[in-house]
Amino acid sequence: MSQYILKIDCQDEKGLIYRVADAVFKYKLNIVKNDEFVDKEHGKFFMRAELSGEINKNEFLGTLEAVLPNGANIYIRLKDKKNIVLMATKESHVLGDILLKHFRGELNANILAVISNYDDLKELVQKFEIPFFCASHENLSREEHEKMVLEILAKFNLDFIVLAKYMRILSNSFVEQYKEKIINIHHSFLPAFIGANPYRQAYERGVKIIGATAHFVNNNLDEGPIIAQDVITVNHEFDWKDMQRAGRNVEKVVLSTALDLALEDRIFVHKNKTVIF
Amino acid sequence: MSQYILKIDCQDEKGLIYRVADAVFKYKLNIVKNDEFVDKEHGKFFMRAELSGEINKNEFLGTLEAVLPNGANIYIRLKDKKNIVLMATKESHVLGDILLKHFRGELNANILAVISNYDDLKELVQKFEIPFFCASHENLSREEHEKMVLEILAKFNLDFIVLAKYMRILSNSFVEQYKEKIINIHHSFLPAFIGANPYRQAYERGVKIIGATAHFVNNNLDEGPIIAQDVITVNHEFDWKDMQRAGRNVEKVVLSTALDLALEDRIFVHKNKTVIF
Amino acid sequence: MSQYILKIDCQDEKGLIYRVADAVFKYKLNIVKNDEFVDKEHGKFFMRAELSGEINKNEFLGTLEAVLPNGANIYIRLKDKKNIVLMATKESHVLGDILLKHFRGELNANILAVISNYDDLKELVQKFEIPFFCASHENLSREEHEKMVLEILAKFNLDFIVLAKYMRILSNSFVEQYKEKIINIHHSFLPAFIGANPYRQAYERGVKIIGATAHFVNNNLDEGPIIAQDVITVNHEFDWKDMQRAGRNVEKVVLSTALDLALEDRIFVHKNKTVIF
Amino acid sequence: MSQYILKIDCQDEKGLIYRVADAVFKYKLNIVKNDEFVDKEHGKFFMRAELSGEINKNEFLGTLEAVLPNGANIYIRLKDKKNIVLMATKESHVLGDILLKHFRGELNANILAVISNYDDLKELVQKFEIPFFCASHENLSREEHEKMVLEILAKFNLDFIVLAKYMRILSNSFVEQYKEKIINIHHSFLPAFIGANPYRQAYERGVKIIGATAHFVNNNLDEGPIIAQDVITVNHEFDWKDMQRAGRNVEKVVLSTALDLALEDRIFVHKNKTVIF
Repeated sequence: MSQYILKIDCQDEKGLIYRVADAVFKYKLNIVKNDEFVDKEHGKFFMRAELSGEINKNEFLGTLEAVLPNGANIYIRLKDKKNIVLMATKESHVLGDILLKHFRGELNANILAVISNYDDLKELVQKFEIPFFCASHENLSREEHEKMVLEILAKFNLDFIVLAKYMRILSNSFVEQYKEKIINIHHSFLPAFIGANPYRQAYERGVKIIGATAHFVNNNLDEGPIIAQDVITVNHEFDWKDMQRAGRNVEKVVLSTALDLALEDRIFVHKNKTVIF
Repeated sequence: MSQYILKIDCQDEKGLIYRVADAVFKYKLNIVKNDEFVDKEHGKFFMRAELSGEINKNEFLGTLEAVLPNGANIYIRLKDKKNIVLMATKESHVLGDILLKHFRGELNANILAVISNYDDLKELVQKFEIPFFCASHENLSREEHEKMVLEILAKFNLDFIVLAKYMRILSNSFVEQYKEKIINIHHSFLPAFIGANPYRQAYERGVKIIGATAHFVNNNLDEGPIIAQDVITVNHEFDWKDMQRAGRNVEKVVLSTALDLALEDRIFVHKNKTVIF
Repeated sequence: MSQYILKIDCQDEKGLIYRVADAVFKYKLNIVKNDEFVDKEHGKFFMRAELSGEINKNEFLGTLEAVLPNGANIYIRLKDKKNIVLMATKESHVLGDILLKHFRGELNANILAVISNYDDLKELVQKFEIPFFCASHENLSREEHEKMVLEILAKFNLDFIVLAKYMRILSNSFVEQYKEKIINIHHSFLPAFIGANPYRQAYERGVKIIGATAHFVNNNLDEGPIIAQDVITVNHEFDWKDMQRAGRNVEKVVLSTALDLALEDRIFVHKNKTVIF
Repeated sequence: MSQYILKIDCQDEKGLIYRVADAVFKYKLNIVKNDEFVDKEHGKFFMRAELSGEINKNEFLGTLEAVLPNGANIYIRLKDKKNIVLMATKESHVLGDILLKHFRGELNANILAVISNYDDLKELVQKFEIPFFCASHENLSREEHEKMVLEILAKFNLDFIVLAKYMRILSNSFVEQYKEKIINIHHSFLPAFIGANPYRQAYERGVKIIGATAHFVNNNLDEGPIIAQDVITVNHEFDWKDMQRAGRNVEKVVLSTALDLALEDRIFVHKNKTVIF
């Protein structure tokens, strides 16, 4: 039997669960897992189900469209591996963590390529037999550099771009082309310490807890919808380099967690926030 | 409009969500919140919904019984305040925390009484104008003492008994009379350090993290279904009294969390475990 | 034997520990606990010791002054209870937690008074037989209101003022009079969500973790030296009122922790940061 | 200037800090960092200092021995890289994490070899150009197998053996040969769930938090001195394989933390507990 993911978000109305459950029942599908949420502030209904059975996808989609409110977003997909491209700069802790997870068969994705603006990571990436592309930004304008990166990306039929410590800011036009498809790890507990060198900022402020945040990238730097966050405690003995060192474990765990959620189609984005089942 | 809680647990079958949603729809009820879970190991379906609307409770119950598998547990209740009795011994940090929460109107319960085997807590309890019963165990057998406590409890129509650091072990026959109604806070991260003086045990073992566990009381000491747990870090500078002191904050927060879950009918007990929505 | 706390901070130099240990040894004092830290960035030495024995305090101070660098801050105090005044507005969860801890004899302080700009908390405070002063701000300028509060404070020989959810901003001149003596609890994970209604801000931003921060109050709102922080996880089901409710446990625990540290003379303030032993 | 680590543990006496500081001062050493702790229950003094300067090690040791109580353990060592051997079985998440950290130059150790009882990990280890030894236990008694492993270990001048998910129990005689040199990661929050398959045990017990524990190996399985622990929350949706999957991140972070502490000579073992500075 095939396994499907069904995601619906639409205007909230009475009877939505009944209508969906009715359709699911008629198609003789089994509901393996089901989650719903109503955002009362915005009158919005979210639902994600894991279904098993056999369907004609378009027919089932048509049935759901007929019973759901106008403008409903309906997403049906076979539960399979996603395709991702990783982007990084020089640091290897987050990238290496994903490569290792992929190597041991625990990442629900194919890594199509790694793109970096330096070649420092080439050796590591090639150990794992993943195609590595160096797209140096040297002597290039941001526009020229992004054009080069976009040309590499265009080669791939990808589901997500994962910024595994890619230290360059993406332009709005770049982001627009991969809306809700770019996942970034920011090395602070957002919204604290937006921008450059958050560990130095955290040190200067004298915080007792530092963290990391995985989020979708949107047009505003470090302000996209948050997917996952975690923290660790620090104290006065930590200078900012100690914080950076300690923070690496959180960074890799948080990005890994967020990536798993994305790969399993568990995230909805709504009003710059995420609903996660 | 009235607010209801509906809880169902039964053998899992195809179409359960559809059948319940159908009944809810026919009674023109609005689903405010809905959660489901299937325990695949045991083929068991759990569902909890918050509904708004007007129903004849028995009629609605009948409708559900007709469409659900034999042996289904169906619980429908108006979303209202529960009645609880607190039991304690000498320590006031957990008891006081609940009394304060009740005093500021944030506890979704009426505190009918506090029962203790000492009178140390009388002064505190009376400050909050809650009836205080001292049932001393001195010179009494366990059986005689429990009889005295049970007679006090029998005065009240109660939903839950909360053991807020009640330091006596309850007999099986006591527990049987209040099955899944007695919530205890154990001052360790269960199943570590069962039994007496867990902080001393934790100190002797040299652990780096200590915790607290709220659980339903069953026939086996400290082995009932776990509702909530939390931990804090300690280090070599903590002797067992320091651990005890530090642990008090965790104890009160964990019991408070577990009690809120119980008062909102969010807990199912199944096979000595809890399913919590 | 008497117990003393010795705190030293001064310019770092070779031989400081030797010189202090030499003095301690000559006065036949026993070192019960000793902590040091050197802030390398600023070339600053911090030391805190718990000593037992008998000394002439001024003589011992003179001995230390003679061997330590010019400008050294030396603090010697008998290990005894501090005197504190609490200030609050309407919310009782943090205030009540401190009152309870004091009531059960676990707070290392005498609570001299509670001052509020409303009288909502009067009933609670009086249950615990602590003097309550209502200093309403109604129809008063900030200056007039603070004058009234300062007159009440002037009655007391206090070590610390604890803002237990006091919801008014203190002027620079007020703060100057109690430098490093005012401890506040801010209901966010600073520096995120400075200012009004941090829970609403956190909800709007869609964070997955919220927190609380205890800090000394300085001239810049929510920017004083941080003493303690803690966090809890939230998800898309929390609206801002749910966050506020959940945050109360963190607020009271974080302030309680910070207050204990202050009462035990464990905090140094330096360059808007804290060194905590 | 050279950097040294000085570790002392001995019976507690008045004047110990003075005596050590005096010696350090006479040798014109600079104290970069200094920590002390007195275990009052056992009357035991612990001290660790980071010193910079130039010394004749034996001479300095003699000076310290002369002023410290009989039986004092004094350890002086240049602050340099340690030598370690890793042992593993089939799982690669913990091993891979250490290999990656070593590869990026952040592990304060040379990895001399990886030994496994299977050859599943060979490919991964060889990617990082570390010698890999397969010592299969098939058709061998425990004694014979350990003899083979010990012969491999004997080739190396090692500081620590790191059990990175080595799934065989070591005999007492093996452990005796590397006393306080073998660091293990146990995939539960010890002392809960000692022995085989702790995730299954945790699932059966219905805990809401799972964890991992790094500890020195002693003669009693899973009962050695604990170095580091950490936890993550789980809920009823986790079956034991989900717990295992989620636990991997904690396992690798906890072992990495414990290993760093060992490599920096920050751990004392005393009475089956650790003192960690």
